[in-house]
Amino acid sequence: MKLLRLGAPGEERPAVLHDQHTYDLTGLTDDIDGPFLAAGGVDRVAAALRAGTLPAKDTTEARVGAPVARPGKVVCVGLNYRDHAEETGAVVPERPVVFMKDPGTVVGPYDTVLVPRGSRKTDWEVELAVVIGRRARYLDGPADAADIIAGYAVSHDVSERAFQLELSPQWDLGKSCETFNPLGPWLVTADEVPDPQGLGLRLSVNGIPRQDGTTKNMIFPVAYLVWYLSQYMVLEPGDVINTGTPAGVALGLPDTPYLRAGDTVVLEIDGLGRQRQIFADA
Amino acid sequence: MKLLRLGAPGEERPAVLHDQHTYDLTGLTDDIDGPFLAAGGVDRVAAALRAGTLPAKDTTEARVGAPVARPGKVVCVGLNYRDHAEETGAVVPERPVVFMKDPGTVVGPYDTVLVPRGSRKTDWEVELAVVIGRRARYLDGPADAADIIAGYAVSHDVSERAFQLELSPQWDLGKSCETFNPLGPWLVTADEVPDPQGLGLRLSVNGIPRQDGTTKNMIFPVAYLVWYLSQYMVLEPGDVINTGTPAGVALGLPDTPYLRAGDTVVLEIDGLGRQRQIFADA
Repeated sequence: MKLLRLGAPGEERPAVLHDQHTYDLTGLTDDIDGPFLAAGGVDRVAAALRAGTLPAKDTTEARVGAPVARPGKVVCVGLNYRDHAEETGAVVPERPVVFMKDPGTVVGPYDTVLVPRGSRKTDWEVELAVVIGRRARYLDGPADAADIIAGYAVSHDVSERAFQLELSPQWDLGKSCETFNPLGPWLVTADEVPDPQGLGLRLSVNGIPRQDGTTKNMIFPVAYLVWYLSQYMVLEPGDVINTGTPAGVALGLPDTPYLRAGDTVVLEIDGLGRQRQIFADA
Repeated sequence: MKLLRLGAPGEERPAVLHDQHTYDLTGLTDDIDGPFLAAGGVDRVAAALRAGTLPAKDTTEARVGAPVARPGKVVCVGLNYRDHAEETGAVVPERPVVFMKDPGTVVGPYDTVLVPRGSRKTDWEVELAVVIGRRARYLDGPADAADIIAGYAVSHDVSERAFQLELSPQWDLGKSCETFNPLGPWLVTADEVPDPQGLGLRLSVNGIPRQDGTTKNMIFPVAYLVWYLSQYMVLEPGDVINTGTPAGVALGLPDTPYLRAGDTVVLEIDGLGRQRQIFADA
């Protein structure tokens, strides 16, 4: 299933896309969020689809919001593709490099993204996002990860490289600017993604292909990351994990073509949908 | 005023402590959180206190929760006291060092704190927390910070030094373990803290004084931090900023006496109250 949220910012309503039809979920839940996922919401939507009880939803001109209401946290894994680690001049890490984004940066997949004031190095990063469906602490091993993953989404981990790398050794400052995490269009439930390590990821800027990778090349695969993180923090329903980006970011290109107002970025992941953002000055 | 939240975890109810009496705020607000602060909640509590309309609250045996319901984000500033930067062997930073804690780590001031599994270096840090009361982006200067600060609280920025410093260059992993941010007992409104740069902070472990500092020694004062952060991220009502710790952490002591199950930590800040935690194994 493809869960989504439609409506103006802060007023999104839950829906499900199934066999090319969109159905209204407001009779079943107020929102797609941690409590909904924790309470078996995905199973209830599946049952309602089977029963044919969901009303159709008119999606004409509806804005698409992020598919999960504001996450409790957004955990990011850096340098998790061998080719990206190499292009940035970093050593391939022996352990996942973990940092965080302000969860308030999460916006819809077609929303305007703001180039921060004073920015000279706003960069793109297409990423596979994992959405947590059940509370997890101290999982026994990567094999336990599947039980706690609700699904997957396209994530744009927008990054300001000067803020991230030049202002201090800690990256969060350059990852947490306003609108820096477009998410969606859908939360694709885990049953529709049999192999999260077999997905192509692509990103273009103004029509120029920039990233074309595959999750096969992750250094630490999804199940390992979920297990690893659960050893250090509690993963809660609705939390998002951005699992890293493949090669092709502006930082790694010879002419470092960073983003400016007016640029259009399109990104997609096999089976998870496509995002499109126009950048503007903050 | 001293705002607080009383009750079992997840079931806290709002209250206010005034002239040594505690009053129930449930008739005025469901909780002490971002929306309450953004909607002028502090002024409404003050008016109700003046009018004498608030019912008394029985506080016998009530657990004290964190004084703000789960913040949208917890932003931390590292190495912000000259003596602490020196004891850890770090260079005094030219700009604030900014990182984040999982907001889910926020617990009550007397709750048990868990030593993570596999931890050898769980450390303490008493800090002045700033609680945001109004949305802020791109403030013009530090002089504008006062308008967006709701108040202050004692914060314990518990840290696992091996997770923070040895597993990767990014600190968040060692700052985000379960229960790692006791907050409170009160949110002391800004009008009761005329000079946030004149507060003594103290922390003891098993009765041994370990930290005894003053916010006078901050490298970047509170108003500067709020302004600085607003240039890189949007500060939202209910967000918490941990403003750094003075010297005296285990990492900086000759015998590095890290915390273990059974240890008792007591911390306090002038005018903001006192915390006490017993540590236990996760």
